[in-house]
Amino acid sequence: MNGTRRISVALARNTAIDILVARGVPAVDAGKVADALIAADLRGIDTHGLACLKDYVLALEENRIAATPKFLVDERFPWASRLDAGNSLGPLAAWEGMTLAVAAAERFGIGATGVIRSNHFGAAGVYAAMAAERGCIGIVAANASAVAAPHGATQPMLGTNPLAIAAPAGRFAPLILDMATSEGSRKKVRKALEDGREIPSGWALGPDGKPTTDPAQALKGVMLPFAGAKGSGLSLIVDILAGVLTGAEFGGRVLSVMTNQERESGNGHFMLAFKVSAFLEETAYTRRIEEEIERLHALPPATGFDAVTYPGERSAHVRADRLALGIPMTEARIEALVALGGGRLRTPAAI
Amino acid sequence: MNGTRRISVALARNTAIDILVARGVPAVDAGKVADALIAADLRGIDTHGLACLKDYVLALEENRIAATPKFLVDERFPWASRLDAGNSLGPLAAWEGMTLAVAAAERFGIGATGVIRSNHFGAAGVYAAMAAERGCIGIVAANASAVAAPHGATQPMLGTNPLAIAAPAGRFAPLILDMATSEGSRKKVRKALEDGREIPSGWALGPDGKPTTDPAQALKGVMLPFAGAKGSGLSLIVDILAGVLTGAEFGGRVLSVMTNQERESGNGHFMLAFKVSAFLEETAYTRRIEEEIERLHALPPATGFDAVTYPGERSAHVRADRLALGIPMTEARIEALVALGGGRLRTPAAI
Repeated sequence: MNGTRRISVALARNTAIDILVARGVPAVDAGKVADALIAADLRGIDTHGLACLKDYVLALEENRIAATPKFLVDERFPWASRLDAGNSLGPLAAWEGMTLAVAAAERFGIGATGVIRSNHFGAAGVYAAMAAERGCIGIVAANASAVAAPHGATQPMLGTNPLAIAAPAGRFAPLILDMATSEGSRKKVRKALEDGREIPSGWALGPDGKPTTDPAQALKGVMLPFAGAKGSGLSLIVDILAGVLTGAEFGGRVLSVMTNQERESGNGHFMLAFKVSAFLEETAYTRRIEEEIERLHALPPATGFDAVTYPGERSAHVRADRLALGIPMTEARIEALVALGGGRLRTPAAI
Repeated sequence: MNGTRRISVALARNTAIDILVARGVPAVDAGKVADALIAADLRGIDTHGLACLKDYVLALEENRIAATPKFLVDERFPWASRLDAGNSLGPLAAWEGMTLAVAAAERFGIGATGVIRSNHFGAAGVYAAMAAERGCIGIVAANASAVAAPHGATQPMLGTNPLAIAAPAGRFAPLILDMATSEGSRKKVRKALEDGREIPSGWALGPDGKPTTDPAQALKGVMLPFAGAKGSGLSLIVDILAGVLTGAEFGGRVLSVMTNQERESGNGHFMLAFKVSAFLEETAYTRRIEEEIERLHALPPATGFDAVTYPGERSAHVRADRLALGIPMTEARIEALVALGGGRLRTPAAI
């Protein structure tokens, strides 16, 4: 890759920890946040990896996110917890939330955690994968600041509201479906406007409340959930699970890490993990999921595809490559990290 | 409505019971099947209501579905059951499956059932709604005979694979999201061909493995899951939950009620129910879900919409109307039911 360098995971991790510790985050918490963000970088989801640190750091410096949050857990059933994350960094809250859910699943076969008073947490799939690594189906739903209008409406109430589901896959890499329930993004619409391209139908309404493929009209209007009524329904369900049910903000009231000047962002997460062995012996499940994937792989690829793959498969290859050779970063990204004051990137010998 | 009559729920129910009892189905089981199918008719999902009886009856008569199945339940955890439905009528298996899940949720706050050796079960939302009526979030995933190619493939491996999620909604009708994870249907493609219309992009690949909007090409090719990679991923997850995890058929091997000549259909269902009170006091949840819906209702409607609604809301109005006035049926549909030998429709005075 031109203009990029490979940064080892260890160096990236230590740099991220330094950056957060310098803002008062305890080292052990900083390590969890670093791991969660780097897990996204490793899978090629660069937008949800260390690139998030810049906003997080500013929020920490302005006390819009708590560097040393007090975590409160209450349980109404042995398998069900609510975690008040005290306006913590989102990745820390989500990491602890899924850890609680998986711990309950180890004891009872199933666990779920409703996380409140959290923030932007990076990539949902990272936390769902934590469950899959422990022999569980993992489900993560998270609400976010309003960007999309529900189906049939002209004003935003739904966020990117990601839904991630992961499943162990035997000798194959875990299946990880990680999807925003919003369609496109204003960033992509702006890019289309710059490039003089139309946007796909279904992405946005114009200011007249009618569907548009004109990026200029879309920017004056509102973005939509993916796939019409189906995606809108799923996005609303995500808001209900992550917000209404947990006690977090909901219904368009979650703020973003850029807009939480007056009050906490109020993000909520819903994490569910259950052992595949609650239904079948793990060996039987493993044989069956491997067969599922073998059947998928045996299908003839469509034009433009070199292979038929399952969600999480391609990103597992990216991960293997990046674990071995490091995370490719442009000089601009490296400079941005250095500017955050980690310093370690300048002295790789230190690690 | 022209050429239609309103058939009362009681008459429809007794007719359906008679039809099934005449094929050896015990009356109590027939009642559950009738209730499940009529619940779909009541919500306006006529394709998944009593219209299914014709195929079911033929399968019963040809012993492709068991009229008196032996149900076997085993539990690996108090909250988790597997139900071997003995090649039962699908609605009976699904009804029993969700009943087990809800019963566990009443005791432990959560319950899940993996149903195997089932068949076509009608509308997934009907069973998810059973959970919502008991203060639970309900999730239903069911696999079905292969009709759609996974994203990037040219041969079918995924079924309509419905996913339904329901949630209690306080003074409002329950939220019920009920969606096929396949896009369009071959029936609709044939209709488009007859009408000389193109089909929407994303519905199908032609025989060359390339996306097509030509219905003739689509009929020679393969249907697709909804919404590209996202819908394909969800459809695969449904197959994993309902098939791989439960012990049912999976990976394209489920047969349909039309094609199960050589062996059982092998449909699997995954049903999950958990109390909203596992996370919040029910009164708090109720206040919050009502506020969510009020915020949704307060959004300005887009062009072509008279109101902003949530999934299950419009069908609740249809249901209220049909409960009060009866289910509208064309004379052709009524004749079809009469032809199945229920007989009761000819003598409404009998009820």
